Amino acid sequence: MKFKLNGRIWIEGEERFMGIGRFQLLEQIEQTGSISAAAKKMGMSYKRAWDLVQSMNSQSETPVLSTQAGGERGGGTHLTEEGKRWVTLYSQFQQRFQEFLETETLKLPAE
Amino acid sequence: MKFKLNGRIWIEGEERFMGIGRFQLLEQIEQTGSISAAAKKMGMSYKRAWDLVQSMNSQSETPVLSTQAGGERGGGTHLTEEGKRWVTLYSQFQQRFQEFLETETLKLPAE
Repeated sequence: MKFKLNGRIWIEGEERFMGIGRFQLLEQIEQTGSISAAAKKMGMSYKRAWDLVQSMNSQSETPVLSTQAGGERGGGTHLTEEGKRWVTLYSQFQQRFQEFLETETLKLPAE
Repeated sequence: MKFKLNGRIWIEGEERFMGIGRFQLLEQIEQTGSISAAAKKMGMSYKRAWDLVQSMNSQSETPVLSTQAGGERGGGTHLTEEGKRWVTLYSQFQQRFQEFLETETLKLPAE
């Protein structure tokens, strides 16, 4: 028998602001340029993805995503500077949390 | 708007071994000397509490609880040495995790 410590972290504002699911959703939107494509990759409905984005938008100073209709950059939905800041912050939290879990796991009985 | 980092940790063996709920259940059993009384305090059914205890017993080297029928100590259900070791370990994890969350929360935007 081998034990390990596991867990989850999330940022709370007025309500849940960003956990691993929302973080991955934003990453997918940034990669695909589309809420719809990102929702599909995450196995969630478009409505669910839209609601999650709206929850983040309503709690942050400025929206986390911006949508452009065509133009030089080809349109699509992308992270704003605010969105990039949150994604970076969460990613750093997550990395340090993983280190915490690995360090603490060493204190568990090996057998 | 004030943000904070929050989260949960749990110890995994073959399956979930101990999270905050099971930890509190063991604490209540130790205080009340009774799985039934502890279950009631936790707002769960006796069957649920029993199943959680069995899950922990089956994953640890030796059972986490022992039940004595009367005798000098008045009987009742109490933590074994193995059970006490796990409760102490989880409590230490939880304390360091709280410190982690507080330290990381300082890195979030104050407004």
